[in-house]
Amino acid sequence: MARIVKKFGGTSVGDVERIKNVAKIIEADVALGHQVAVVVSARSGVTNELIARAQSINENPNEREMDMLLAVGEQETIALTAMALHALGVPAVSMTGAMAGIKTDPFHTRARIVSMNCDKIESRLAEGSVVIVAGFQGANDDGQVTTLGRGGSDLSAIALASGLKADVCQIYTDVDGVYTADPRIVPLARKIPEISYEEMLELASLGTKVMQARSVEFSNKFNVVFEVRSSFDTSKPGTIVKQEVSSMEDVVVRGVALDRNQAKIMITNIPDEPGTAARIFGSLGEANAIVDMIVQNIGRHGVANMTFTVPREDTKRAVAAVESVLNSIGGGEVAVVGDIVKLSVVGVGMRSHSGVASKLFGALAEAKANIQIISTSEIKISVVIDEKGCEDAMRIVHTAFGLDKEEG
Amino acid sequence: MARIVKKFGGTSVGDVERIKNVAKIIEADVALGHQVAVVVSARSGVTNELIARAQSINENPNEREMDMLLAVGEQETIALTAMALHALGVPAVSMTGAMAGIKTDPFHTRARIVSMNCDKIESRLAEGSVVIVAGFQGANDDGQVTTLGRGGSDLSAIALASGLKADVCQIYTDVDGVYTADPRIVPLARKIPEISYEEMLELASLGTKVMQARSVEFSNKFNVVFEVRSSFDTSKPGTIVKQEVSSMEDVVVRGVALDRNQAKIMITNIPDEPGTAARIFGSLGEANAIVDMIVQNIGRHGVANMTFTVPREDTKRAVAAVESVLNSIGGGEVAVVGDIVKLSVVGVGMRSHSGVASKLFGALAEAKANIQIISTSEIKISVVIDEKGCEDAMRIVHTAFGLDKEEG
Repeated sequence: MARIVKKFGGTSVGDVERIKNVAKIIEADVALGHQVAVVVSARSGVTNELIARAQSINENPNEREMDMLLAVGEQETIALTAMALHALGVPAVSMTGAMAGIKTDPFHTRARIVSMNCDKIESRLAEGSVVIVAGFQGANDDGQVTTLGRGGSDLSAIALASGLKADVCQIYTDVDGVYTADPRIVPLARKIPEISYEEMLELASLGTKVMQARSVEFSNKFNVVFEVRSSFDTSKPGTIVKQEVSSMEDVVVRGVALDRNQAKIMITNIPDEPGTAARIFGSLGEANAIVDMIVQNIGRHGVANMTFTVPREDTKRAVAAVESVLNSIGGGEVAVVGDIVKLSVVGVGMRSHSGVASKLFGALAEAKANIQIISTSEIKISVVIDEKGCEDAMRIVHTAFGLDKEEG
Repeated sequence: MARIVKKFGGTSVGDVERIKNVAKIIEADVALGHQVAVVVSARSGVTNELIARAQSINENPNEREMDMLLAVGEQETIALTAMALHALGVPAVSMTGAMAGIKTDPFHTRARIVSMNCDKIESRLAEGSVVIVAGFQGANDDGQVTTLGRGGSDLSAIALASGLKADVCQIYTDVDGVYTADPRIVPLARKIPEISYEEMLELASLGTKVMQARSVEFSNKFNVVFEVRSSFDTSKPGTIVKQEVSSMEDVVVRGVALDRNQAKIMITNIPDEPGTAARIFGSLGEANAIVDMIVQNIGRHGVANMTFTVPREDTKRAVAAVESVLNSIGGGEVAVVGDIVKLSVVGVGMRSHSGVASKLFGALAEAKANIQIISTSEIKISVVIDEKGCEDAMRIVHTAFGLDKEEG
């Protein structure tokens, strides 16, 4: 007998038929004698509907009331999921986050889980019930409903798995695992059987939107092994995410990620004086523009050029912030280049293998992709290239690092 | 400064615009310096939607899970109502039934309120907030969500008014008060300024569907004065419902009610033996048929005839129950007469005035309505008449008892 935590996202419980399907998946584990605790999200679309309704009443709704409102979405799903299990003859009981003992800090709409008291869940599991817990929500010390922000249901599942010392935490989603690259772009992409938290974090933050980086960090912190798998095709195993083990270093590059949501901002002819860069990035920080990759060149005639990337939605704010500084120092021009992408290769094996950069650059040369910016970390190399041709480049890089699946 | 409990039903909070309207009604009282606690129902239609979704998953959903599910409807409305007040600059905080201290017995989907702990509401009122409480729900000793059944939000409001020792409890609804008769049938019907619980109970159970009889009984038990008034036209006072005061006896008949939901069942040629009636009504009770008016005649030749009324939806069950008894005693025939109505006049003044029955029968004779059954209580006389012509009869009775409003 194993103890299993299963989490189903909004699309997996999107309608009545899908909720019945989820119940069947749970039933299969119960039939094998396992103890099962389940975390469910709101039906897809419900949370956005509630937010829209709130905003049509109050443009800037109070955060405590927002949590009271949003908690409704998951509360509906837990009750329906329990009913679906009952229809299959499986004992089940639903619990809101508060009832399940998920204690958070007091910060509404972005609360952090501070502790789990699993006594109530333990006693229900002991009597043979499946326990269905509302994801995304908890309660603070004052008993007020709190929500955990985007990706919160994954956090609930991982906290539960940690609190219950579960043997496995299965995150069911609409993809069947983590791939070496987005299969819609790279048809030869393979599902990765095992990946380290660090690699998953880099891939998650680079546009492989399986999970929020926050949930992966949380799993890492509490050392919860989890599996990302499909709720629609349950026959295949998914991807196990866990602490790095030494054998993981045998693979130099675990995956290739493409981030299309970057814009490049170029500042030219900046008077080259000490403190200018600090003023520019100070101003960008105040404007809440998230600066990613940065390159600075000292040009001729005592002027400097500087290039950096920001998420596309931050472009306007970033340009305004830069312009205000340029105006005050009396010089320099700013321009935006929107049609660029960031391509990254990620793998813990890079730490112990050399030649990754040269292999990447060689592949990009083969793809005729001109590298505009380069940045590296211990387990990642990222380059900014033109958006045009980027998918070809990605396929060629994928092949170059031996990531293509074998034919047949 | 007064302390006011206001309750808004499902149609009053049916959409975003109506919720904003409710907030304005509350704001007006806050502006006058009153302390206001509010009970709201789910948006109209939401509860039925949730029930339909549950039944498409499980034909016989578990009652605990049903309560977990249904509580969602009111939780949405309390948050939205609080947000709407914030938009007007009025401090407000929402509370679920459990948070508001509404403690119930353990019976899911039909719980009874056993106590109110108003400490949390008191402290929020003291700090100047409007408190918005989810109607229809509470929590049992084990902290499980319970719901109060049909009309539950009215119960919540009355319990709250009792717990808070409110000066007044206002039940906002889509009618603007209790009338001497249904104004759609009797155009000259007048709004009743004050009515006793007993009269309201008789009118409520007789087809004037302003409130569930249960809520009126509850108010009577806890001596909560409440006012039924309109959430759409707030300029006019509604109807005050309270303990009988002696001046109420000055009015002989407070109102005329028509119940179209009755069917008459006639049993003829029953062998006239002791115990037959007991067997028939025992069988009807087992079949959950709610028998209302009963007449029995001993006919000639040792056979009896018996006539009674039941709600129309109970007709089939009632006939089957009667047939099974008739079969076992070997005699008698049963027939249903569907096209009848029950017309009643209600008033505490009947206790001290005579001649009410003769005036009623005279009016019915004038209306050419043939009286089929008569039943009386201390403050009510009911007759069964043909459905055909019943509205004319109602108008004539209304006039005969001096209930018509004055012209101009």
